[in-house]
Amino acid sequence: MRTVATFAEVRALGSGIVGFVPTMGYLHEGHLSLVAAARRECDTVTVSLFVNPLQFGPGEDLDSYPRDFGRDRLLVERAGADVLFAPSVEEMYPSAPLTTVTVAGVTAGMEGARRPGHFDGVATVVAKLFAGIEPDRSYFGRKDAQQLAMVRRMAADLSFPTRIVGEPIVREPDGLSLSSRNIYLDDAQRTAARSISRGLFAAAEAVTAGERSGRELERIVASSVRAEPGIELDYAVLADRDTAEPLGCLDRPAFLAVAAAAGATRLLDNVHIDRIEGEWVPDVGVRLDTRSILYKET
Amino acid sequence: MRTVATFAEVRALGSGIVGFVPTMGYLHEGHLSLVAAARRECDTVTVSLFVNPLQFGPGEDLDSYPRDFGRDRLLVERAGADVLFAPSVEEMYPSAPLTTVTVAGVTAGMEGARRPGHFDGVATVVAKLFAGIEPDRSYFGRKDAQQLAMVRRMAADLSFPTRIVGEPIVREPDGLSLSSRNIYLDDAQRTAARSISRGLFAAAEAVTAGERSGRELERIVASSVRAEPGIELDYAVLADRDTAEPLGCLDRPAFLAVAAAAGATRLLDNVHIDRIEGEWVPDVGVRLDTRSILYKET
Repeated sequence: MRTVATFAEVRALGSGIVGFVPTMGYLHEGHLSLVAAARRECDTVTVSLFVNPLQFGPGEDLDSYPRDFGRDRLLVERAGADVLFAPSVEEMYPSAPLTTVTVAGVTAGMEGARRPGHFDGVATVVAKLFAGIEPDRSYFGRKDAQQLAMVRRMAADLSFPTRIVGEPIVREPDGLSLSSRNIYLDDAQRTAARSISRGLFAAAEAVTAGERSGRELERIVASSVRAEPGIELDYAVLADRDTAEPLGCLDRPAFLAVAAAAGATRLLDNVHIDRIEGEWVPDVGVRLDTRSILYKET
Repeated sequence: MRTVATFAEVRALGSGIVGFVPTMGYLHEGHLSLVAAARRECDTVTVSLFVNPLQFGPGEDLDSYPRDFGRDRLLVERAGADVLFAPSVEEMYPSAPLTTVTVAGVTAGMEGARRPGHFDGVATVVAKLFAGIEPDRSYFGRKDAQQLAMVRRMAADLSFPTRIVGEPIVREPDGLSLSSRNIYLDDAQRTAARSISRGLFAAAEAVTAGERSGRELERIVASSVRAEPGIELDYAVLADRDTAEPLGCLDRPAFLAVAAAAGATRLLDNVHIDRIEGEWVPDVGVRLDTRSILYKET
C-alpha cells in the first residue's frame, strides 16, 4: 500500500476501476466493510483519511475527534487497500476556501437542522475528493443515511461520474451501531445506548408484521430510547431514502432514523427499509461476533 | 467532429490531453480564439454549447438570448474542435437541481453585486462541466474577468485537476469587445459603445506612462463613457486579478473593468494589467481586421 498526501499522486496510482472510501480515520469494522466492498468490486482501492474542519461547527468536537494515524494505516493496509490518501489540513486548504457546495432540500431536516453548516462542509469536501480523485465507485456507510442521500444528490446534480454505493450498518454484538465516537461512552452510557438499536429492531419487526405508519414506527423507537434515563432522544423520523423528507406512511424506500445524546456524545442510527418483490424489507445491518476493534490495541 | 449530448459520450471521446471550451453558443471570434488555443495545446478539443438557465436572473434575457445551433456547429467544426457537447436542458437538469456551488469573496462586487445569483449559476454549471468532462485544460475569455477569477478559485478550492487558461479579449476593428449580445445594439448604441474601449485604451496608455492610482484610472474610463449620451456607465473599477477586490493602487496583477448599459443591453469590457520584468504592462487584447462573423451569414 502506498501512503500519499496529494491528489496528483492518488490519480497517478489509480488504474482500472478506482474504488474510493472517504473516512475521517479512527477506523472500525464499518469503515473496513466499505474497504472490503471496494476490494471486491474495483481494481484500485483508495481510502482517504482526513478530519475535515469544514464539517464541524463551533463548539463541536473537532479538536478532540479521535485520531491515531499509525493504527488507521495498519488497518487500511490489512483490509487490502492500494492507496491511503492522508493529506494535511494545509494540503487540503492552502488558504481558507471560498467555495461552498450546498445541497438544498435533502439537508433541511434532522442533522441539517441540528448542525448548521455541517452538511455544507461534508458536501464541499466530498465534492473536492471526487474532483481530485476521480473515482469510479465511492463507498459510504448507511449509518449516516441523510449524508448518503445528500452525497447521491450532489454527485448526480454535479454529474460526477462516480457510482455511489451505500453499505449496510455494522453493529457491536449487542446491537450498537459502530461509530468512532463510541469510544467516548462510559459504561452506563454504553448500556443506555443499547436502547437505540433495540428500538430500531422492534420497529423493523413491526414493519415485517405489516406496520406502515410513520408515526407508529417512530413511536416504537422513541419509547425504547425514552425508557432509558442515561440517554436523551433528539428525534426519531421515518424519512424518504432519496430526499430525506419525513414520511407519514411507508410507501417508498425509506430509512427510520434516530438521533440521541449520551452525555456530550451524539449517536445516530437507522434501519433502511426497501421494497423487494412486493414486500417491505427492513435492513438492520450486520452484527459483529466479537467486540469492535475500536477498543483494541492493534 | 462528433456532436454528442451526454457526458459519458464526451468522456469516451477524450484521449490524451483534453482541452475544454465552455460556451453559451452564438459564437464569435472570441470563442473561436479559445478553440484555436485549445487546438494548439491539446489532443482532444471539446466545446460545450449550453445556455445555462441557472445563471440568468428573473427579468434577464434567458428567453431572448441568441441561439443558432446550425451556425455554431459549423463554426466549431471549422475551428478544429473534435467534440461538440450540446446537451438539452432536460439532459443537464433531469430534475430541478438542489446543489449549488458558491464562491464567496471574488463574487461580492461588480457583476456579483448587480446580478444576484448569477455567479452561483455560473460556478454550479462550470463545476458540473468540469466534473462530467474531466478536462485537462479549460479555456475562458478574459472579457469576463471576474468570472475568470471566480472559476480559477472554484477549480482550486475543489481540486479539479484542470488548468484554467485565460485568453485575450477579441475586439471589433473599432475596439468594441466581442459579445454575443452586441447583435442587440442599434447603430446609435453601437457608436456610443465605442466610448468603453476608447476609455480603456486611454487608461492603458496612462498605465504605460506611469499612472498607478486606481481612482485616476477609473476616472479616465468613466469620463470617456459619460461623455456619450447613448450609454450609461454602471461602474469602472480597478480590481485585483485573483480576488476581484477593488484596488486603490496598481500594486499587483489587476484588471480595470467597466460595465455599462446601452438601452437594455449590458456591456462588459476590461484591460488586464500584468507586471512583466518589473514593468506594468496593460493587455488590451486583439483586434479583428474585419467586422465580426456575428453579423454575417455563415
